[in-house]
Amino acid sequence: MGEVVLHKVSSHKAFEGELIKYKYKSAALGGLDTAFNLYLPPIAAHGKVPVLVYLAGLTCTEDNGAQKGSFLGVASAQGIALLFPDTSPRGAGIEGEDKDWDFGTGAGFYLNATNPKYAKHYNMLTHVTLELPQVIEAASLPIDFKRQSIFGHSMGGHGALTLYLSSKTKQYRSASAFSPIANPTKCPWGEKAFNGYLQGGVEEARGQYDATELISKSRDPVHILIDYGTGDEFLKQGQLLPENFLKAARESGYDEVQVRVRSQEGYDHSYYFISTFASDHIHFHANFLKA
Amino acid sequence: MGEVVLHKVSSHKAFEGELIKYKYKSAALGGLDTAFNLYLPPIAAHGKVPVLVYLAGLTCTEDNGAQKGSFLGVASAQGIALLFPDTSPRGAGIEGEDKDWDFGTGAGFYLNATNPKYAKHYNMLTHVTLELPQVIEAASLPIDFKRQSIFGHSMGGHGALTLYLSSKTKQYRSASAFSPIANPTKCPWGEKAFNGYLQGGVEEARGQYDATELISKSRDPVHILIDYGTGDEFLKQGQLLPENFLKAARESGYDEVQVRVRSQEGYDHSYYFISTFASDHIHFHANFLKA
Repeated sequence: MGEVVLHKVSSHKAFEGELIKYKYKSAALGGLDTAFNLYLPPIAAHGKVPVLVYLAGLTCTEDNGAQKGSFLGVASAQGIALLFPDTSPRGAGIEGEDKDWDFGTGAGFYLNATNPKYAKHYNMLTHVTLELPQVIEAASLPIDFKRQSIFGHSMGGHGALTLYLSSKTKQYRSASAFSPIANPTKCPWGEKAFNGYLQGGVEEARGQYDATELISKSRDPVHILIDYGTGDEFLKQGQLLPENFLKAARESGYDEVQVRVRSQEGYDHSYYFISTFASDHIHFHANFLKA
Repeated sequence: MGEVVLHKVSSHKAFEGELIKYKYKSAALGGLDTAFNLYLPPIAAHGKVPVLVYLAGLTCTEDNGAQKGSFLGVASAQGIALLFPDTSPRGAGIEGEDKDWDFGTGAGFYLNATNPKYAKHYNMLTHVTLELPQVIEAASLPIDFKRQSIFGHSMGGHGALTLYLSSKTKQYRSASAFSPIANPTKCPWGEKAFNGYLQGGVEEARGQYDATELISKSRDPVHILIDYGTGDEFLKQGQLLPENFLKAARESGYDEVQVRVRSQEGYDHSYYFISTFASDHIHFHANFLKA
């Protein structure tokens, strides 16, 4: 990792801190250029700060959360860095990769592909959990990766919950999600992704990439917050299934303090919904990141 | 105006209120379809609320401020509606209209064109100050147009300041701007716009469409707040000239209470800058809108 060079693409002052976009050649993504945004709160000028990773949803990039999430002001005040990875490799040149909006580019699903067609490039799990922390530490940026939490939206909510629950190293202190794809082995988006990226398809996904399956087998203490809107069209289509996750969590013995799932009347799947509850989520994570 | 029909394009719940996009055939814009966003705070369910008009900058639409400004949460808490018009007519089909990013589509400059080539469609002044209030009132939406203020960014900052200062009817109670084009008769963007839209070119603009010229002749009480960033590339290029506006305001006898111009160290021209000071600006207007 010592040879990875981070290129600063842009920098914007925001809430007295700095939002910086970097790019670098990602080994995890098969040598492709990838970009991420990192928000450093003002207090990071005086020492390392904890970090909250935001995983975006289908079709998004590293920019959507930074631009539309209303996260930066709260993170500034709380002294927490925000890390915004991209949602997939870009430019792998795999046949069919750009055909659909819900698979391939912009739809990496935060897993490591085992289907040989995708295995070289589609390794967002390794990219987010291992490579980005290593690259950022190697660049001597003021992030304390011993204090990480993770959140996300839709496909990114799936990512946040599964990376949190499946982490062997208990890498993240807490997880939260807006409108997550919470039971992807049972919905069209998840089935399509798993059947495409994984050699064993949906069956291979069950034990590691389905939050509902993972919580049903978990007995460790957890800190999870989920918000979804009752006006969400994808909820109505059965793509999200947060009720399955909640039921499995309760059956595993988790109470409302450990797993809180909130149904928000009338809200939809948009960033307007996310921004409404952004402050809640960052304060939730601050409880654990600053403990 | 009684025949104007507002079509609801979309609606998003946000911060317990509602952001609604409407479209309608605009007489002021020569019969073209135009869209606007209207944010209604939750208290609007119980009676009419004051309104703050946001004018966006070059290349923007009615969406940029709503999505990236971080305005909605503060407006919700303050009980103020937000009105986001578009930045120009769209689809007029005038030769050369889409050639440049800083003229024509997305660059209406909040004036009424007198050049015959543009005079039928490019009347954003009438659209914002007269037509939108009439159309919204006719639709019985819960807005009290006796309590209006106005703000904007870049070209929209120019619009906010000039519409405020030139209003014969004192339509707006206060004006504020992020990185405004504050002396457009003396900068390339303004010269290009005025020479294109106005038969008399820059000379015709001087008395009505240049905030620095207007403040230099004004002696009425005013309530103006301006923020700009010292890291703004367009400031460095001489497109904004807020120092000219400040100098003219002081020469007209306005003190820091009436005209406040703040230089913000290191901030640039982006929505990250706007969102940082969004709360300040809405609270500034709330002083007058709720008086």
